[in-house]
Amino acid sequence: MALEDLTQALRQFRDARNWAQFHTLRNLIVSLNLEAAELLELTQWKSDSEMAKLLDDASKKEALSDECADVLLYLLLIADTAGIDLEAAAHAKLSKNAEKYPVDKFYGSSRKYTEAND
Amino acid sequence: MALEDLTQALRQFRDARNWAQFHTLRNLIVSLNLEAAELLELTQWKSDSEMAKLLDDASKKEALSDECADVLLYLLLIADTAGIDLEAAAHAKLSKNAEKYPVDKFYGSSRKYTEAND
Amino acid sequence: MALEDLTQALRQFRDARNWAQFHTLRNLIVSLNLEAAELLELTQWKSDSEMAKLLDDASKKEALSDECADVLLYLLLIADTAGIDLEAAAHAKLSKNAEKYPVDKFYGSSRKYTEAND
Amino acid sequence: MALEDLTQALRQFRDARNWAQFHTLRNLIVSLNLEAAELLELTQWKSDSEMAKLLDDASKKEALSDECADVLLYLLLIADTAGIDLEAAAHAKLSKNAEKYPVDKFYGSSRKYTEAND
Repeated sequence: MALEDLTQALRQFRDARNWAQFHTLRNLIVSLNLEAAELLELTQWKSDSEMAKLLDDASKKEALSDECADVLLYLLLIADTAGIDLEAAAHAKLSKNAEKYPVDKFYGSSRKYTEAND
Repeated sequence: MALEDLTQALRQFRDARNWAQFHTLRNLIVSLNLEAAELLELTQWKSDSEMAKLLDDASKKEALSDECADVLLYLLLIADTAGIDLEAAAHAKLSKNAEKYPVDKFYGSSRKYTEAND
Repeated sequence: MALEDLTQALRQFRDARNWAQFHTLRNLIVSLNLEAAELLELTQWKSDSEMAKLLDDASKKEALSDECADVLLYLLLIADTAGIDLEAAAHAKLSKNAEKYPVDKFYGSSRKYTEAND
Repeated sequence: MALEDLTQALRQFRDARNWAQFHTLRNLIVSLNLEAAELLELTQWKSDSEMAKLLDDASKKEALSDECADVLLYLLLIADTAGIDLEAAAHAKLSKNAEKYPVDKFYGSSRKYTEAND
């Protein structure tokens, strides 16, 4: 399995460096937030047309790819530490979202399920 | 494949609601950051001993699982929009990290590769 | 002084509730990040034209004002805990920024000082 | 007035570089989030005892001071752009918080006002 393989590789990477001692749930969640911010930084000051061209620039696309990877790696470490089956969790959450956002009420609308329909 | 299945399910969820119009790279990255913050919120004000007990509380574990899922779902949408193979990106990044953090120099150390070894 | 008055009011608010025990530097910084995310959430899914109209909606302007206030309140608590004179720090940082971004090289440019001038 | 002086200095800094064109509410809020993340990064991987010693290290204290300053500078730009009186907003929010967190119910408790009292 793809995610299981990645998790195995991550555990080896971590244990070869004796880093499990630093990988508390709190530390991993903070680190995931920092990687998410690096992803956000790739959008900083960019106009919509600059954002649209971002993927045409090989070095910027690689930066985007690297930051996405970093978020995934910390997410896998969090899931592994917490005993969460990430794939099952994502399918379950998607089902919850389908209930919160029924098609007939949210078709073409970006409002939140907590916001009144105008 | 696990991630490809999830991405397919996400595309259907999105298109059934005509939401692709909102899913610009910028908007998806902002949303991923907000989900990361909800994960961080689960740690807010908690002592280390409270963090250690978090997984024993079924409703808190479900909240953690849901927030992890939300991060993954936005990450998959970003990767799908940007044409990034997330699994390959993660393996590539792990290799880069192995070069930046050689075992002999970083064994048992939490400093960054940009920080001098004391 | 304005900020000193606010800091005094905050200290009274905190001590009346016996909350100093929770106000470690780490916890305050995490909380400031969560408030910053709530500010970011006010921009989520909004088009540029919706952002431009945000200030015309009294309840949204109040939400923006409240989130800005929350960021300031945590910032003052951090500064108070760390013994930082926030006003002096801001003036000092503005001087550093003026050196990093000389007018003749960065006029009308949004690139970072670490990025090459094209 | 302290904050008004800083805002004046910021306007001059911005206008000397012709940067007002980049200072949309959305961009300023994203930038504030990135600065908040840099503050969070100062806590990354640090144990509680390392956090306690952070202020004894002059270069780390300066980094903390600089990041606090950056958050304040963006906050002032947001307030200036949105026509918010930051000081008045902070006093108003502190009053709201005092109502949400009455002393008798929240003395010595770190739970949120939305959480039940155990």
